[in-house]
Amino acid sequence: MNDSMLKKIRLRDGVFAPRQKINREVTIPTCIQRCEETGRLKAFKLEWKPGDPDEPHIFWDSDVAKVLEGMAAALMLEPDPALEKQLDELVELVIGAQQPDGYLNTHFTQVEPEKRWQNVSGMHELYNAGHLMEAAVAYFQATGKRNFLDAMCRYADHIGSVFGREPGKKRGYPGHEEVELALVKLAEASGNKRYLELADYFIRERGREPNYYVEHENSPRKTLIRVQAHKPLLEQTKADGHAVRAMYFFAGAADVARETGAKDLFQAVERLFRNVVEKRMYITGGIGSATVGERFSVDYGLPNDTAYTESCAAIGLALFAKRMLDFTGEAGYADVLEQVLYNNGLSGISLAGDTFFYCNPLEATVATFEPTSPVREKWFGCSCCPTNYCRFLPRLGLFCADAAPEKLRIDIPAAMNVSLPEYEVEVKGDYPYDGRISVRIVRGGEFTLALRIPGWCRDHRLELNGKCSDVSPENGYWQCRRIWQAGDEIRFTMEMTPEVIYANPNVPADAGKAAVRRGPVVYCLESVDNPGILLHTVRIPAHPEFQECPADGLPEGTLALHFRGEAVRTVAGGPLYSANAPEYVPAELCAIPYMLWQNRGPAAMQTFLLVR
Amino acid sequence: MNDSMLKKIRLRDGVFAPRQKINREVTIPTCIQRCEETGRLKAFKLEWKPGDPDEPHIFWDSDVAKVLEGMAAALMLEPDPALEKQLDELVELVIGAQQPDGYLNTHFTQVEPEKRWQNVSGMHELYNAGHLMEAAVAYFQATGKRNFLDAMCRYADHIGSVFGREPGKKRGYPGHEEVELALVKLAEASGNKRYLELADYFIRERGREPNYYVEHENSPRKTLIRVQAHKPLLEQTKADGHAVRAMYFFAGAADVARETGAKDLFQAVERLFRNVVEKRMYITGGIGSATVGERFSVDYGLPNDTAYTESCAAIGLALFAKRMLDFTGEAGYADVLEQVLYNNGLSGISLAGDTFFYCNPLEATVATFEPTSPVREKWFGCSCCPTNYCRFLPRLGLFCADAAPEKLRIDIPAAMNVSLPEYEVEVKGDYPYDGRISVRIVRGGEFTLALRIPGWCRDHRLELNGKCSDVSPENGYWQCRRIWQAGDEIRFTMEMTPEVIYANPNVPADAGKAAVRRGPVVYCLESVDNPGILLHTVRIPAHPEFQECPADGLPEGTLALHFRGEAVRTVAGGPLYSANAPEYVPAELCAIPYMLWQNRGPAAMQTFLLVR
Repeated sequence: MNDSMLKKIRLRDGVFAPRQKINREVTIPTCIQRCEETGRLKAFKLEWKPGDPDEPHIFWDSDVAKVLEGMAAALMLEPDPALEKQLDELVELVIGAQQPDGYLNTHFTQVEPEKRWQNVSGMHELYNAGHLMEAAVAYFQATGKRNFLDAMCRYADHIGSVFGREPGKKRGYPGHEEVELALVKLAEASGNKRYLELADYFIRERGREPNYYVEHENSPRKTLIRVQAHKPLLEQTKADGHAVRAMYFFAGAADVARETGAKDLFQAVERLFRNVVEKRMYITGGIGSATVGERFSVDYGLPNDTAYTESCAAIGLALFAKRMLDFTGEAGYADVLEQVLYNNGLSGISLAGDTFFYCNPLEATVATFEPTSPVREKWFGCSCCPTNYCRFLPRLGLFCADAAPEKLRIDIPAAMNVSLPEYEVEVKGDYPYDGRISVRIVRGGEFTLALRIPGWCRDHRLELNGKCSDVSPENGYWQCRRIWQAGDEIRFTMEMTPEVIYANPNVPADAGKAAVRRGPVVYCLESVDNPGILLHTVRIPAHPEFQECPADGLPEGTLALHFRGEAVRTVAGGPLYSANAPEYVPAELCAIPYMLWQNRGPAAMQTFLLVR
Repeated sequence: MNDSMLKKIRLRDGVFAPRQKINREVTIPTCIQRCEETGRLKAFKLEWKPGDPDEPHIFWDSDVAKVLEGMAAALMLEPDPALEKQLDELVELVIGAQQPDGYLNTHFTQVEPEKRWQNVSGMHELYNAGHLMEAAVAYFQATGKRNFLDAMCRYADHIGSVFGREPGKKRGYPGHEEVELALVKLAEASGNKRYLELADYFIRERGREPNYYVEHENSPRKTLIRVQAHKPLLEQTKADGHAVRAMYFFAGAADVARETGAKDLFQAVERLFRNVVEKRMYITGGIGSATVGERFSVDYGLPNDTAYTESCAAIGLALFAKRMLDFTGEAGYADVLEQVLYNNGLSGISLAGDTFFYCNPLEATVATFEPTSPVREKWFGCSCCPTNYCRFLPRLGLFCADAAPEKLRIDIPAAMNVSLPEYEVEVKGDYPYDGRISVRIVRGGEFTLALRIPGWCRDHRLELNGKCSDVSPENGYWQCRRIWQAGDEIRFTMEMTPEVIYANPNVPADAGKAAVRRGPVVYCLESVDNPGILLHTVRIPAHPEFQECPADGLPEGTLALHFRGEAVRTVAGGPLYSANAPEYVPAELCAIPYMLWQNRGPAAMQTFLLVR
C-alpha cells in the first residue's frame, strides 16, 4: 500500500470523489477544531501540570496523528498551500514534544513520566507511536519535507532500543497493534531495514510463552485473547478479540510477509482472512459483532441489531484486504474490499462529513436504540472513528486501482483518471450504480491492463475497441498486455440487477431472512421512505420485481429500489402475546443503499428482511 | 403474602411438589455447603482480619439469609428436627455477629468499619438487612423462636435511628431495594408499626429532589435510573433499571399500600405492573431484557438470544404479582403469576436441584453462547439466584391459593391439600398438563370457594356435584359461597390445547415468529429431541397438527408436543452470503416445556419459531 500512488489516481466518480471533497472541506477542519477544543493539540506544548484541566489522555496523540496523516494524504490528491502551511505548523507542534531520547507521547511525558513502557498491554503507547509514524511517512511523501520522518526514525530507534530479544530489552509488544504496519512504511520511506526487523519482532513475539503480559504486566490470562496475545500468530486460526486491533495486526503481518518473503506469516494471515469473510463478517463488510468489547464474537454470531461493527474495524478490514490483494493479485480479496467500501466503509460518516457512527448495526429498531445509537455523533470520548475517516477517505483511490509502470490493475472500476509517466488511462461510467463502464487509453504505452470481474457479477461482456474479447480471466481479472494506443477503449458491461441474498443458514440472526444487494451495494429500508409500517415486520417474496428509481433526498445518481412486499402497520398498544396473528397489509417498499442511511434524520432501518 | 399460610397448603402435584422435595434434599444442603466453602458462614464469626483470605463481600450476608429463610420455609411445610437443629445453630451464628447497637453486617463490621452507611447506593447494606429480616420472620413463624426476630427488631430500630426525615438523620434509602418489603413483614410479625413507617419512608423518599445519592454519595445522575432513584415512585410510569431491584421495590410499595391504605402507592405500582406485562415481559414471564446490567431495556425490546432475564427477576415478578393478586383479587394478576411459575420461574434451576441459570434466554444458538451460558452452573460469584431458589420453592404453594377461614381462593389449580381449622379441601388432577381438575371438600364448613378461570383458557366447563354451574365469574373467578359438605365436588374442565402464540408486532425480535404454548406452559425445541437440523431455521405452519406424547428423559407426566414443520439441515461451511436460498426439508419436530430445557445435557434451544 504505497501512498505515493495517491498522486497518480484521481477519482471522478459520484460516490467516492464527493467524500474526498467533503473530507478536505469539512471533516478535516472539523476534526482539527475538535482536537483544539478538547486539548489534544495543546497537549503537545508540554505545558500541562497535575491539577490542570484537559489531562492528556493515553490515546489523544493518535487522533492528532490521524488528522495530520489525512491532511498529508489530501495534499497528495491536490496541492493546497494554505492546507500545507497549516500542516507544517501542526507538524512542528507535534515534533516539538519529542524528548531528547526520541520518545514522544504527551500522556506519559506529562502525566506519568515514571511509567513509560511499563504497561504496553493497556496504555496505547506503541499504538500512538504507530499513528505518528504513518503521519510522518505521509507528510514526507506529500511534501518531501523530512523533519517529521527524521523525528519518527529517532522515535523508532528509541523503541528498538527498548524492545527486542536482545539481553536487557523488554520482550513486549503493543496492546493495540498499529506500530507494526507503521514500521514497515517507515522502513520503506527511510530505507532503514531495522524498522522492518522491529515490526517482524513485534509480530512474531506476540503471544509467545512465557507470555510477556502475564509475566510482566499482571494481565489475567483470559484477557489475552482480546489483544490477540493468547497465542502466537502462526497458531491463530480464528480472528478473535478486538476487531480493529486484529485488522491492524494482520495487515502489519501481511506487510512483513510481503517485505521479507515469509511464507509462514502469509499463510497465517490468509487463514485468518478466510475465517473473517467466511464466518465473521456482515454482508455490509462490517466486523466485530459482539455487543460489548468492540470485538469478534463467534463463528456465525452476527446479530443485526446489536452489531458493534465499528467504523474503524471496517476501515481496518479494507486495509487488510488491500494488502492481501496487492500481495496475491487475486480478485477475491478485491471483492471483500469492495464490499467494505460501498457499505460499512462509508456508512460511518454522514454525507455532510461532520457526524459519525461508532457502531454500524444492520437494523435500527426500538430494541437497538439502547446498545447502539441510531444518530451519528459529532465526536466521541474515544474518537478514533472520525479521525480515521480523515485519513481513509483521501486514500479511496488507492483501493480502486494499483498503477505500476508494467501493469495497471483496476480493482474497483469507479470513474477515475490514472496517470503515470508511462501511460494515462481514464475509467468512465456511473459505477457502482451502473454496470457499464469504459476504460479509455488517454496516453499509450506497453503495459498489462487488468480488469477485475467482480465476484457478485453473474454475467459480463467485454469489448476491446468494439470487438468482443473472450480472454479467460486470470485470478479473477481480465488481463491484456499490449502496446496500448491513445484512444483504445475497453467497454465492460457487468450484469447488475437487484438480488435477494441469503446468509449462511448457520447464522441464527438471518434465519428466514434475506438482504437486497445490487452490484456491490447492499440496500436497506429506512422508515423515512416507508412510513406507516413496522420495518422489522416487512416480508418480501423470494423473487420481488424491482424497479430502479432516483433516491429522494440523496446525492444525484443514487439509485433507490422499489418493490412490493407486505408488512404490519405501525400500531400502538395491543396485547403483548396473543393467539391472533398480526395482520399483514401489502406494502410498496423503497430501499436505499445501506451506506447512505441516516442522512435524512433519525430513522428506523432494516437490512435483512423476512422472506415469504 | 403471609408465610404462616405455608402450613395450610400442601402441594401434591407433579411439577411443584417434586421441586420442594429436591430443594430440601439437595438445593438447601448444597447452598449451605457453598456458603461454608466460600467463607460466607465463617464471616459471621467476625474473626476476619485484613490480609486474611475470604474477605467478606458486601452481599454475602444476603446469601446466607436466603438459605436460612428457605430452611425455615421448608420446616413450615414439614417438621424436621435435624433440619431445625441445623437452622438453630446457623441462626445463633448469624445473630452472634450483631453489634451492641443492633448493626449486623459482616463486611462493614470487619472490612470497612468506618464506612457504615456511607454508601447505601452501592454497598447493599440495607439489602442484606432486608434478607436477614425476612429470614428472621420465617424462622419465627416456623419455630416460634423469637431470638432472631428480636435481633432483627433491634437492627431495624438501629436503621430507623439512622435513616428518616427527622433532623440529624440521613435521608437515604437502599441502593438495592428489599428492606422495604422485609420491614412490612417485620412489622406484622413483631406487631411494631414503626417498621411499616420506616418502609413507607424508604419508598416515598426514593428519587426525591434534592437527590440523596447525588448530593451525599456522588452518584452521577445518569446512574440513578438503574436503582429506580431517578424520580419518586409516584412519578414513575415505566419499569426501569435493575429488574430485581424494581420488583422488590414495587412489591414493597404494594405491601405498604395494602397495610396503610395508600391509594397513590397502589396506583403507581399498578401502572408499573401494566408496563411490565404489556411491554417488557417475555412470554416465559422473564423480565430484564438488556444484555448488560441485569436491567429492563425499552418497551418491546425483547431479544430472544441475549435476553438477560435473571432467575431472581422472575422470582421478583412472582412476588410482585402475588401481592397485586392478594390486594385486588383480580385473576389477571394470577395469570401473570402462573406464566412466571410454569416457565422462567422454574427454568433457572435444574431438575436435580444442584445447578442454576443466572440468565434465562429464550433461544440458545451459536450466537448466544457468548453473552449467556447455555449450561447451568453450580454457583456464581454473585450467587443470588441459587439461594433465592432455596426460599422460593418452599413457597410455591402460597402462590397457588389463598386460604382464609371465610374464603378459599384457588389461583393455580395444582394438585394440593388445603387444611384449616374451618375446612379442608383437596385439589386433584394433573395440572398444568391436564386441564381437568377436581376440587373436593374433605371437611365442610361455610366459606366462599373461588376458582380462577385462566386467561389462557378459551373454553371451560364447571360441574358442582355433577350439575353444570353457570355462575358468572367475578374478577375472573368462579365463586360460590355455601355451607360445603364433605364429599362436595367441583369438576372443572379447562380446554387445554396447544396454541401458536404471536408477540405484539412491535417486538422486533419476534417478527415473523410465534411460540407454542399449551395451557400456561410455553414450549421450546431442544436439539436433543431434534437432531440434524438447525433449530433457528425451523418454520412451522400457522396451524400445526399437534400430537401430545410423553417427553423422553423428563419427569413422568411431562407432555411433549410433536408437530410438523420444515428446517435446514445442520451443515458445516458453505458461503457466508449467497443468492441461493437455503434448502428446507420437512421436519418432525418435538417440543418440550421451556421450564425443563437443558436438563439432558447442553443443547441448542429455540422458543420463538418462524411461521410460514
